[in-house]
Amino acid sequence: MDAFRNRVGGFAFGGDYNPEQWDPAVWREDVRLMREAGVNVVSLGVFAWASLEPEPGTYEFGWMDEIMDLLHENGISVNLATPTAAPPVWLTQLHPEVFPVMADGERFGFGNRLHYDPSSPIYREYAAAITTKLAERYSFHPALAMWHISNEYGPTAYNEAASVNFRRWLRRRYGDLETLNEAWTTRFWSQRYTDWDQIEVPHIPRTWMNPSRRLDFKRFTSDALLECYIAERDIVRSFRDDIPVLTNFMRFYKHADYWKWAPEEDAVALDIYPNPADADSHVSAAFQFDLFRSLKGGQPWLLMEQAASAVSQWQLNIVKEPGRMRLGSLQALSRASDSVMFFQWRASRGGQERFHSAMLPHSGPDSRTFREIVDLGRELKLLAPAAGTTSRAEIAVLFDWDGWWGLEETAGIPRSDFGYADTVMRHYTPLWEGHHPVDVVSSASSLEGYKVLVVPNAYLIDDEGVRRITEFARDGGTVIMSFFSGVVDECNRVRPDGYPGAFRELIGAKIDEYWPARPHEVFAVEFADGRRATSTWWRDDLHLETGKALATYADGLLAGRAAVVDNRFGAGRVVYFATLLEEAAFGAELLAAVEAAGVRSPFPGVPAHVECSVRGDEADEYVFLLNHSGERAESVPFPGEGTDLLTGERVSGAVELAPLGAAVIRRARA
Amino acid sequence: MDAFRNRVGGFAFGGDYNPEQWDPAVWREDVRLMREAGVNVVSLGVFAWASLEPEPGTYEFGWMDEIMDLLHENGISVNLATPTAAPPVWLTQLHPEVFPVMADGERFGFGNRLHYDPSSPIYREYAAAITTKLAERYSFHPALAMWHISNEYGPTAYNEAASVNFRRWLRRRYGDLETLNEAWTTRFWSQRYTDWDQIEVPHIPRTWMNPSRRLDFKRFTSDALLECYIAERDIVRSFRDDIPVLTNFMRFYKHADYWKWAPEEDAVALDIYPNPADADSHVSAAFQFDLFRSLKGGQPWLLMEQAASAVSQWQLNIVKEPGRMRLGSLQALSRASDSVMFFQWRASRGGQERFHSAMLPHSGPDSRTFREIVDLGRELKLLAPAAGTTSRAEIAVLFDWDGWWGLEETAGIPRSDFGYADTVMRHYTPLWEGHHPVDVVSSASSLEGYKVLVVPNAYLIDDEGVRRITEFARDGGTVIMSFFSGVVDECNRVRPDGYPGAFRELIGAKIDEYWPARPHEVFAVEFADGRRATSTWWRDDLHLETGKALATYADGLLAGRAAVVDNRFGAGRVVYFATLLEEAAFGAELLAAVEAAGVRSPFPGVPAHVECSVRGDEADEYVFLLNHSGERAESVPFPGEGTDLLTGERVSGAVELAPLGAAVIRRARA
Amino acid sequence: MDAFRNRVGGFAFGGDYNPEQWDPAVWREDVRLMREAGVNVVSLGVFAWASLEPEPGTYEFGWMDEIMDLLHENGISVNLATPTAAPPVWLTQLHPEVFPVMADGERFGFGNRLHYDPSSPIYREYAAAITTKLAERYSFHPALAMWHISNEYGPTAYNEAASVNFRRWLRRRYGDLETLNEAWTTRFWSQRYTDWDQIEVPHIPRTWMNPSRRLDFKRFTSDALLECYIAERDIVRSFRDDIPVLTNFMRFYKHADYWKWAPEEDAVALDIYPNPADADSHVSAAFQFDLFRSLKGGQPWLLMEQAASAVSQWQLNIVKEPGRMRLGSLQALSRASDSVMFFQWRASRGGQERFHSAMLPHSGPDSRTFREIVDLGRELKLLAPAAGTTSRAEIAVLFDWDGWWGLEETAGIPRSDFGYADTVMRHYTPLWEGHHPVDVVSSASSLEGYKVLVVPNAYLIDDEGVRRITEFARDGGTVIMSFFSGVVDECNRVRPDGYPGAFRELIGAKIDEYWPARPHEVFAVEFADGRRATSTWWRDDLHLETGKALATYADGLLAGRAAVVDNRFGAGRVVYFATLLEEAAFGAELLAAVEAAGVRSPFPGVPAHVECSVRGDEADEYVFLLNHSGERAESVPFPGEGTDLLTGERVSGAVELAPLGAAVIRRARA
Repeated sequence: MDAFRNRVGGFAFGGDYNPEQWDPAVWREDVRLMREAGVNVVSLGVFAWASLEPEPGTYEFGWMDEIMDLLHENGISVNLATPTAAPPVWLTQLHPEVFPVMADGERFGFGNRLHYDPSSPIYREYAAAITTKLAERYSFHPALAMWHISNEYGPTAYNEAASVNFRRWLRRRYGDLETLNEAWTTRFWSQRYTDWDQIEVPHIPRTWMNPSRRLDFKRFTSDALLECYIAERDIVRSFRDDIPVLTNFMRFYKHADYWKWAPEEDAVALDIYPNPADADSHVSAAFQFDLFRSLKGGQPWLLMEQAASAVSQWQLNIVKEPGRMRLGSLQALSRASDSVMFFQWRASRGGQERFHSAMLPHSGPDSRTFREIVDLGRELKLLAPAAGTTSRAEIAVLFDWDGWWGLEETAGIPRSDFGYADTVMRHYTPLWEGHHPVDVVSSASSLEGYKVLVVPNAYLIDDEGVRRITEFARDGGTVIMSFFSGVVDECNRVRPDGYPGAFRELIGAKIDEYWPARPHEVFAVEFADGRRATSTWWRDDLHLETGKALATYADGLLAGRAAVVDNRFGAGRVVYFATLLEEAAFGAELLAAVEAAGVRSPFPGVPAHVECSVRGDEADEYVFLLNHSGERAESVPFPGEGTDLLTGERVSGAVELAPLGAAVIRRARA
Repeated sequence: MDAFRNRVGGFAFGGDYNPEQWDPAVWREDVRLMREAGVNVVSLGVFAWASLEPEPGTYEFGWMDEIMDLLHENGISVNLATPTAAPPVWLTQLHPEVFPVMADGERFGFGNRLHYDPSSPIYREYAAAITTKLAERYSFHPALAMWHISNEYGPTAYNEAASVNFRRWLRRRYGDLETLNEAWTTRFWSQRYTDWDQIEVPHIPRTWMNPSRRLDFKRFTSDALLECYIAERDIVRSFRDDIPVLTNFMRFYKHADYWKWAPEEDAVALDIYPNPADADSHVSAAFQFDLFRSLKGGQPWLLMEQAASAVSQWQLNIVKEPGRMRLGSLQALSRASDSVMFFQWRASRGGQERFHSAMLPHSGPDSRTFREIVDLGRELKLLAPAAGTTSRAEIAVLFDWDGWWGLEETAGIPRSDFGYADTVMRHYTPLWEGHHPVDVVSSASSLEGYKVLVVPNAYLIDDEGVRRITEFARDGGTVIMSFFSGVVDECNRVRPDGYPGAFRELIGAKIDEYWPARPHEVFAVEFADGRRATSTWWRDDLHLETGKALATYADGLLAGRAAVVDNRFGAGRVVYFATLLEEAAFGAELLAAVEAAGVRSPFPGVPAHVECSVRGDEADEYVFLLNHSGERAESVPFPGEGTDLLTGERVSGAVELAPLGAAVIRRARA
Repeated sequence: MDAFRNRVGGFAFGGDYNPEQWDPAVWREDVRLMREAGVNVVSLGVFAWASLEPEPGTYEFGWMDEIMDLLHENGISVNLATPTAAPPVWLTQLHPEVFPVMADGERFGFGNRLHYDPSSPIYREYAAAITTKLAERYSFHPALAMWHISNEYGPTAYNEAASVNFRRWLRRRYGDLETLNEAWTTRFWSQRYTDWDQIEVPHIPRTWMNPSRRLDFKRFTSDALLECYIAERDIVRSFRDDIPVLTNFMRFYKHADYWKWAPEEDAVALDIYPNPADADSHVSAAFQFDLFRSLKGGQPWLLMEQAASAVSQWQLNIVKEPGRMRLGSLQALSRASDSVMFFQWRASRGGQERFHSAMLPHSGPDSRTFREIVDLGRELKLLAPAAGTTSRAEIAVLFDWDGWWGLEETAGIPRSDFGYADTVMRHYTPLWEGHHPVDVVSSASSLEGYKVLVVPNAYLIDDEGVRRITEFARDGGTVIMSFFSGVVDECNRVRPDGYPGAFRELIGAKIDEYWPARPHEVFAVEFADGRRATSTWWRDDLHLETGKALATYADGLLAGRAAVVDNRFGAGRVVYFATLLEEAAFGAELLAAVEAAGVRSPFPGVPAHVECSVRGDEADEYVFLLNHSGERAESVPFPGEGTDLLTGERVSGAVELAPLGAAVIRRARA
């Protein structure tokens, strides 16, 4: 990736480029305007399979040769995609069994994309063939800077081939049927398997399903897609191994465990489309950016796709108002992105996404959007010194696909409306508002160097994760944990000896029952110092053992019982939330625990809507100050001294930010 | 049709008659009561296939002979139906492939009606056979007055036979695959076709679908049904060509392009079931009536089915309160219907529609409904002079199936909740409230003779339509157009050179982006004269070129920019609404433009709920005054002189209308 | 059943026991804790098929032998289940056609339970085989006290085998096709059948379906399941006929006509899971209990399953708060249950229901739930004298599956949102609040001995039912009937000669039309004595014949017309509600009619939330007083004298009840 950064001279800037949709005359105009905008990278060929291989085994590379040469001549590097996310119609005409069978039992048809069963040997064979041809031809083309494997891996398939692959996967995982039967508790409801061939993917019935089988199917689906990625990656690497290889991920995407994918890539890349209709979408974006920086241990990542303005796939597609695209781009950079890229360069005239905005919109270069793109390209050059730098935090937030699946995909828990992403955001938001740097960790991550670990509703966690968290606390860390954590083992079986089986000692309490609240039920909670707050949605029927009550219920059947627990554990401390506190009280309590753990906000007193983050290297820091308010200007205290790279001016004492204004201040490390 | 009118002696009055459901003893009572009610036409045999052909090739015509004779003896004419809307069970038992495959991929089963794939050659063969037999037997029966081909053509099928027929249709439309690929923009998402057999009907995937393919499928579906109609029509015409042939259409029916169907019929006929639970259903009915009068260029049409009181197919089936059935019937006549007919004559005891009201309800002749029927039959005789007359307007409203499909059936536009029927009604309602005569036109209609053309949200319009509208304005007409018009071409591809590609010159402005509004977002709009109003839902980010602002935004990011545009174009004028104005302000502005175009309401000062319309011939006019209020009596100014046909009294100066009262005044043309 | 009662020494107490989920070591602990709790019966083997027959024809009975012996040694009787509700995976692997096809056309897959088509001959063959093996082995085991056939019969299947069985069922019902065609009104929409093989189960189309066919399909589905039950019952009886045989029913279960099932069982048994989130769930429970007592003519019944606390199958699973499980258990006993049993004994660690509460929860014996179970076991012993007693009422409420299906399952009625269970509860609730004993009857039940018959919205009722109700009134009974009753015959055909065809003479009025109300429409109603009330939802357009108005509409188009009718009929009286009166007025009017019929509440003046019921035998009465309020203590007048079995104390004059408190007072019959 260092070579890639050097090649683009700082930050990558560009977008998906689909020249096969246009006449060659347009290509010349495209390249001219790309240069005007400062574009230095394009993602080429993402859905070009039918243009590259119009009939089975017949290839047309001439147009791509021409484009690659043209781009290279103009100093634009190519992130070359394998086109395998959209098989041509001849493939499904020859082999309809490649079409995925959906959860409702129907077989997908032609006309969308991602219309393949990732377990299909036929699909994999044809995908390998076109990948090989591409790699043969372009591995040493001077424009090639990166390989973009397929696109937004996603489909879940319930085909017969999926069942065959699922059985293979299960054999690897469990070895023998007896172990599988035990793991899946098949003695319940007479579900015991006596022959591997009895096991199929669990597409119908849709609910009331063995929760362990369902969980394994989610794991398998992620792994089956990953197999597809690895197969193509290995092909392109076999030709040349000094070009970075990756694929593009999606935000809060539940169906692929990115912790397992990240090690297989040279960098991780994110496609993100925050909804401009949602006033808080930048907070959720910040979390995604922190996650992506964390997926490969702090290494800079790539913003691979975003929209220049509105998207077209939703029911309501709001534009990004003037200034917001720039602000969102700087926000990605502030959290260690090394690129700002878009879907797509030029707006399509036809097809499903004809109204998706583009760097070059339907209204052409004389448009608000293109002007903002040109301005952004100019600014990115000013920020180039920050490229390749990163950051590290003292606070970690646990975010785990296994836990997500357990909570949302396996029915039969006390309430079915857990939203894992929402609960994680509920824990992350006060930290973001307090300008705290945050890393994201999985249950398999090392916790070394952190002072605080936040564990949101970690229903399902394996023994190793339990051990890591327990040791983290024992060794002096502060664990902030919320209810319904540590309940089941990695097979989705309730841990024995009373709730929460994994963490009873850690939280210093035993839970007799989980008491979900009725709709609209509100509980009064009183803190030790007399402060009152309310809670809703959930209560543990909890009995303190070594823990002490930080807050108790002031009414209801649990009056006087603990609502928030404080447990000294080894050299560390655990703060456990046994109910859903109202947001303000929850945020205050969480931040108090952070402060008690000795973690200070680097930007005290700055209003929440001015996002403050830092990336840097050994020599320098780059302080990003981003005013998300469209109405209010702010004067932000800046104790040190530095230079605003965007303006070139020296900064000291305070920074003035217009509405939607930004500053990126370089300062030497102390 | 003149012969038909002469035969029934004015207006046709009657309903669907299904004697095969009843014993012959009941038939005698039916005919007696029909005579009591003044019935002069019945639609016979609409679902009688199983009774006429109980086994393949075995026919039972005896009962129908008897009924035809009995009706003829009693002076009742027959509108004889081909029974092909409900194939007998033996047909689908022999050929299950006739059952339509539905959009969800499941094959329909027996037990409803319309259970056939219109592209099925087998269905068409059997339908032709029974049609031939019927025509052989009854073409010269003296009771025969009209042919009623099948019933409410409707089903969309996704069968293999449909794919075969779709390919045939596409070959005719495009000639070669390269043209089709270009029209469908198949370079996007790698959808290029290299073999006609690769193309199937687009049933799965359900969303994220090529919008051009989807659009063509809607066109094809309408045409496949029309092929069925034409085949049966040609059979009956081959026996005798002096009997009118038609089929019955439905209100706001999206799946058949009635502009293409109308020329194939001798008259158009409407089945309409306004919901009595909806306080405005008579306004939408008025639009339908105007549409049906317009479909064949002002020729009178037939009200073929309505309910005497409640229907039974909805979740909630409200009765028509006393007087409302009569008022709705007169309303149809006022807008050039030449008939008042019902589904059905006698209420069924069993089957799906056992609680659908009828002219003769379950409670028998001693019932409110039958008494109202008898009264109406008597009144229709008084109105007979008006039969065969029609009307013409100076205002035309564009209503186009292509535009409807583009807006509602092809995903991926800025917002997905466009309702074409609603938007058309939003434009029509102020005209209706102002008692303006209105014609309805398609984009292929001649605009000669009109002073004003109203163009509601015409997203998709072909080049010829664009040319007609542009010339209409250039030649001195006033065009009233609302946002998101002229955006794509007839293939659903965005027109080049900035929005709105088709109408940039016409509206005198370029639109940079479409800005759909957030839910609950309200904008202040200020008119040139200082009046204020609000708008919601949508704003164009519009830049005036030759146009001038009639109104501007008074707040928000577009403050000061044009919200309503006034553009002088050639000898004409264009008023363009770039946002969704609140109803009152929109209506006022629209009516102001109408008035400025020199169009005067013929009934100024009459309250909106008193509907006023005129039909006539060269000699006489028939002025219908209909008070839709159930509470308020009204005195309506009537400047001229005439005779109220309902009362036989002379009218002059003013007409008194009781709640739900009506007057039909004949006056000589000035 | 007497032998069973003697064997358990009063009330049965226990639950489903699934030892195959646990190690033998756990079995010992289970039995020890069962003894501690006073458990005397367990339901064994409910889903044990795969454990008993792990491969086709290979049986493993060793573990069950051991358990049976262990239980017997500890004095615990066994309610032995045939395991046929959950076929092993090898059966569906060998014979996938056993899987039910669902209403949407998809074939069910493995992973849930009830995954069989009850009409499948293959399923029935394998079910018979395992049942035979079980009966062979355990019929004379000393632990055996009862046979539990399968579990919660339920599935509706649309398989080919179901069509074959449906045709067989129809042949038996109708004899010949002409009769069927007549019954189904197949002349409507050309649906006439000419060959039995043309008839299939009506799975697709889903709506707009022949309502008579749909009704017969509901009847058939219930009967097909009943055939499965009878086949297994006959097998176990063939070994030994002195052991009671039954299956477990569900609350308000629409898909099996329990009136037809009950005679085939030695006792009826109920699984009931009142939702603790619903404040009125105990009223609906009371109705269920009355229904179950009535199903076999007053014979005590068995509460077979309830939850010790929360369930896990809902979206939101609220716990039973302390004291409520006990109160609900006593409530069942108060209405003639002879058992208190639970699903299940020990909470599962895995599987769909891992969070379903159990007598022995995840938190073990040191838990609120287990302590409440132990306390309840102790109390049940004190109440033993009441076992086997029952009660009889003077008021009967009609509750009929045919009527339920007619109203909710056959489309095309004036409004589609009838809720039969809700309407029955609306009529039952005032009686419950007035502490009136109530029996439940079907339209085929004898009405001898009743003074009042309540008939809620009995849309569909056969001629025999009409005759019984009419004679009941003629002979002096009071009939309280609500609108839309007696409309169609047993084939779902509208009865001739005006609404309500069955009851026009009975109610003394003819109804011209049914007038469903618009949403939010409210009508003023005035009673003869000047009281005013409101009504909504429905009005009959009713014309009095012999009846008199008890109340009239005070506004609207029906002002002055009858809203409630009072008709003297023979020696009896009919009170007919032609509209949906507001609850308070409806309850008052209904109770006034009850009082006028000479029926007195045995507990006048007791607040509604203190439920009062009596069961007894010739010698003694057991008066149950149950305070459902969790907040308010009550002092309940108790005129007589008796002994509270729970405390052993004498009671006289009044009984003091704490919140959620209960008393069970034995007193000698007067």
